[in-house]
Amino acid sequence: MVMREVSVAWPQSPTSLGAVLRHVHLSGSVSRTALAERLGVNRSTIKALIADLVAAGLVREEPPADTGRRGRPSLVVRPEPTRAYVLAFDVAVDRLVAARVDLGGAIVERYEAVRPRSGPDLELVVDVLARFGRRLHASAPAGSACVGVGASYCGMIRPGDGMVRYGPDLGWVDQAFGAELGRRLGLGLPVAVGNEAHLGAQAEQQRGAGIGHQNLIYLHGDVGVGGGIIVGGSLLAGDGGYGCEVGHMIVNPYDGRRCLCGSQGCFEAEVGERALLDLAGRPATEFGWDAVRSVVDDANRGDPAAQEAVRRVGDWLGIGVVNLINLFNPGMVVFGGTLRDVYPAATDQVRARIAANVLPVARERVRLRISGLGYDTTLVGAAELGFAPLLADPLGTLARAA
Amino acid sequence: MVMREVSVAWPQSPTSLGAVLRHVHLSGSVSRTALAERLGVNRSTIKALIADLVAAGLVREEPPADTGRRGRPSLVVRPEPTRAYVLAFDVAVDRLVAARVDLGGAIVERYEAVRPRSGPDLELVVDVLARFGRRLHASAPAGSACVGVGASYCGMIRPGDGMVRYGPDLGWVDQAFGAELGRRLGLGLPVAVGNEAHLGAQAEQQRGAGIGHQNLIYLHGDVGVGGGIIVGGSLLAGDGGYGCEVGHMIVNPYDGRRCLCGSQGCFEAEVGERALLDLAGRPATEFGWDAVRSVVDDANRGDPAAQEAVRRVGDWLGIGVVNLINLFNPGMVVFGGTLRDVYPAATDQVRARIAANVLPVARERVRLRISGLGYDTTLVGAAELGFAPLLADPLGTLARAA
Repeated sequence: MVMREVSVAWPQSPTSLGAVLRHVHLSGSVSRTALAERLGVNRSTIKALIADLVAAGLVREEPPADTGRRGRPSLVVRPEPTRAYVLAFDVAVDRLVAARVDLGGAIVERYEAVRPRSGPDLELVVDVLARFGRRLHASAPAGSACVGVGASYCGMIRPGDGMVRYGPDLGWVDQAFGAELGRRLGLGLPVAVGNEAHLGAQAEQQRGAGIGHQNLIYLHGDVGVGGGIIVGGSLLAGDGGYGCEVGHMIVNPYDGRRCLCGSQGCFEAEVGERALLDLAGRPATEFGWDAVRSVVDDANRGDPAAQEAVRRVGDWLGIGVVNLINLFNPGMVVFGGTLRDVYPAATDQVRARIAANVLPVARERVRLRISGLGYDTTLVGAAELGFAPLLADPLGTLARAA
Repeated sequence: MVMREVSVAWPQSPTSLGAVLRHVHLSGSVSRTALAERLGVNRSTIKALIADLVAAGLVREEPPADTGRRGRPSLVVRPEPTRAYVLAFDVAVDRLVAARVDLGGAIVERYEAVRPRSGPDLELVVDVLARFGRRLHASAPAGSACVGVGASYCGMIRPGDGMVRYGPDLGWVDQAFGAELGRRLGLGLPVAVGNEAHLGAQAEQQRGAGIGHQNLIYLHGDVGVGGGIIVGGSLLAGDGGYGCEVGHMIVNPYDGRRCLCGSQGCFEAEVGERALLDLAGRPATEFGWDAVRSVVDDANRGDPAAQEAVRRVGDWLGIGVVNLINLFNPGMVVFGGTLRDVYPAATDQVRARIAANVLPVARERVRLRISGLGYDTTLVGAAELGFAPLLADPLGTLARAA
């Protein structure tokens, strides 16, 4: 066999193209030089990879803003916003959200609906979301392709088919949510579904308070408390994808409040919405995020009952956080959902518990933060789930979507 | 440039050689065909890899036992026991163990000493272990090389240098155990140190009850309860290597027993040695594994106080296991150390808690087992830590050791 050296175009693997696109998508704006460094490739390779993405209309190259430094600056790569988008859905206990999210992560259009707390309602939920979705799809700019659909759901989700195995807050058991939403959207795209707190953890790590953290815990307050735990850079899934159920860690087994799951003294029973509202003396007819926020506001204004409620819930919140730090030795704990309001009011209680009960060695480096993505953490996580196929194989996914 | 096809020896990377040696070391006996399949290489590659290991004296090839089937059977590869060994040490609360462990994992010689429970005693511990180690080294067969040293310690260990950051059972804080033992052994080899339950989890997954499990929790009872948690095939380390502290998960914050760590109501305070002995009415002068075993024995013989003690500790054990299953969705929970005795007596309590308090979806596949390696789980884990350099680079490590 004789081989001759010939000049050939460097073959761009879907993986390399996806890696470049992921950096641009998450950074918003990044120089050629920085991209080459992060991917560990040389200048001619990064140039060829970017050229392919530019040709596909997914990114653009621009001169950077004037840096005041001499010499020719490295071109800056940005996502092209009007070429590819995803539909993102968020099914929370009290609200339904749908959004169109462009490459680069901007939420460009959204619809929200209040969801009544009334038992199994797969059909109603899917009906509302599908209507929103079709409207978002219809109003997308010409030439922009829908490359994926992601949904966040407040329950335990079977990986692969988006089956809601268990949603204790709403009484859902084994409901084919993902498949049904995909059918009703009629876009010929599968709907990737994830647990809200799992997606929230990934969103906070990629775009929020926890950028760069490889060991991160995200706590999502709603009726209860969901958890998403990043261990060594990856979401803790467990054998079936049902790990991270921090809300059902028992912290008060003999004297605790009843939990919606049937147990007694679960973490979420002690720190959830009902506990706070009951302790503040609010009637059972009050519930939801606004009710939680009003207790926190009253506590901040000096109302003694509200302060006592926040203090007691804060102590239980601290106990749960202590357990998670001792178990996971994380670099960061992020509070989202209703805990975005509760944690700042209960910081003293949480910090006191950590100081008293976390092993000194395990708390050396841990930071506590509220979610960096506001109340959109779970929606952003759903959008990122929708972008996964594009970031795995940009050109193939775009070709299939067109 | 012109290239000609030439016949060259296939280059054996240290990684491939190590992968083959690892399989042989852990399997004890494995056919050429099975090795080729597991490594995903062809017959001629596996033949060459095995030939290199045979030449180094690390493995041998033999005809298999008569299978009764026709045709030429695949040769069987076994570890050569007298070429490479490690020294393994186990520092538990009440005992010190040292052993010589051959390639293949057989414990061929061992020494044990009782350790008094009396405060900081780095010098005494290292003195005893170094004496044992030198004796084990001196009695190794001629031609066999010491390729590594591993130690298990009942405390929180800094990865990298074997510093004991915190050993609440014995009051150790920041003691340079690994460095000191290495110095006193005088073999010119570093001592790799790991937390006992971390090493126990890995040992049970590699050689014990949990072979093949990618999500496994190992609970090690001694004075307290240590944990080793395998998530997606890897040990949960956390940011600093200090994760898995299951013993200090608070389960009874307001009414609980005082823990050696200073907290109240930690899991290990409620299920540890002192809780069981106190509940059984044993005086404070009784302690240790034999005392725990005698309570279990008395309970099995029908003694009411012992039965009540086991029942109550069993309920707390169940609560902790519930929390871990909800958090980690593991395929298996393994009980080792003193829990090897306690769990079988308390199975009803643990199973009742799981049935009542674990989310149904998370308990679908979980199995509960006692340690498959008996009371040597942590020692075996230490030995495997010692073998790590050889399995990463067989020929290089052997050359350095010779």
